[in-house]
Amino acid sequence: MRTVDDLLDVERIKVLKARYFRCLDTKDWDGVASCFTPEATASYPQQACGSRDEIIAFLSRSMVEGLVSMHHGHHPEIEVDGVTATGTWYLHDKVFAPDFDFALEGAAIYSDRYARTDDGWRMTHSGYERIFETTWKPSDLTSYRVEQGRISRGPA
Amino acid sequence: MRTVDDLLDVERIKVLKARYFRCLDTKDWDGVASCFTPEATASYPQQACGSRDEIIAFLSRSMVEGLVSMHHGHHPEIEVDGVTATGTWYLHDKVFAPDFDFALEGAAIYSDRYARTDDGWRMTHSGYERIFETTWKPSDLTSYRVEQGRISRGPA
Amino acid sequence: MRTVDDLLDVERIKVLKARYFRCLDTKDWDGVASCFTPEATASYPQQACGSRDEIIAFLSRSMVEGLVSMHHGHHPEIEVDGVTATGTWYLHDKVFAPDFDFALEGAAIYSDRYARTDDGWRMTHSGYERIFETTWKPSDLTSYRVEQGRISRGPA
Repeated sequence: MRTVDDLLDVERIKVLKARYFRCLDTKDWDGVASCFTPEATASYPQQACGSRDEIIAFLSRSMVEGLVSMHHGHHPEIEVDGVTATGTWYLHDKVFAPDFDFALEGAAIYSDRYARTDDGWRMTHSGYERIFETTWKPSDLTSYRVEQGRISRGPA
Repeated sequence: MRTVDDLLDVERIKVLKARYFRCLDTKDWDGVASCFTPEATASYPQQACGSRDEIIAFLSRSMVEGLVSMHHGHHPEIEVDGVTATGTWYLHDKVFAPDFDFALEGAAIYSDRYARTDDGWRMTHSGYERIFETTWKPSDLTSYRVEQGRISRGPA
Repeated sequence: MRTVDDLLDVERIKVLKARYFRCLDTKDWDGVASCFTPEATASYPQQACGSRDEIIAFLSRSMVEGLVSMHHGHHPEIEVDGVTATGTWYLHDKVFAPDFDFALEGAAIYSDRYARTDDGWRMTHSGYERIFETTWKPSDLTSYRVEQGRISRGPA
């Protein structure tokens, strides 16, 4: 990272990842798709995906109706090399699925790759490895309530 | 975002929002006030505010003695347009009010507006919409303890 | 913050702190050590440290085998002044130590100092003060499970 152009690219990649997480947790699948190239791949602990279509199919299938989630990417370590870039992020995720009496909180390290396209920076690969994952049944807390906001049901 | 000046403004707005959250959770109401213009408005799920004075009155009334809170704004998506700017943020908030046997954790999307003033960037509007909100009674966990640090009681 | 050089230094210090947290939670003590100057000091609520060796000894002793942790530094407010800099960060930390039936979640404000060295920016001092700290026994939730990922056991 040596020039203002590098810095501009770093900030644009941060905004790309911000849009990804915002669209993911608001179930805006067109928005999520717009963050990847068509040939993008993914390696999640649960599944590998060989294309953008497979990524969107996997993510939208995982985020069932009524489930709410929070996915945050912290601590970006981004390296720009011309028209490609790599990014390391520290994921903090929470999932509440009241219909399945299921709650999850986890931490993981992301290893992403990016490409500069005519439409701006896009993810060409995303994947993470778990630091830890905790799960519990919300019903263990007798007073526990989850209220889903309108925007987490996807675009109107 | 095309120039180093845009980048400098983006970083200054990030620092403004950082100061806002730090002052909020340390109950430094003068510090919180310094982040807004006098005419600033807010649209929170619980209440709309028509001026900076109303914002500070609402926030300080909400954060009662003994309550501790954590408000984090992640994933800034900031657009600068001359002397004004907009910002989208992803809020993660936690609140513990032991006196009321109340705990809250939530996620929301902020839509802010900013103005460049003689004293630097300030918020002219802030508001958010919930992705989800969870609540529970800390007493459901018999071992649960909250310890409040000195700095969360406000400036000496 | 007035020039592109300031911005570059701010981004480099953000990446330094990102590396610190990533190495801390993956128990990569050589990686953690590489973030400090040899003379670095620390003032944690539990202990003061007078050198990098003392910092590493304290941190590695605290993070026992089987313990998993998540340390995130949010909201950087960084001021660069030539070859030194200061940084304020908002810490969110979680610790799960199943062997001790212990869980912790806390919030704190970091006050760091940095120096530009021949190998890049390094921490010369780090310390934080608590906003709040909560603790509980995971066994209060009968369904509670923690799974530790491979990367949180340290480098292979």
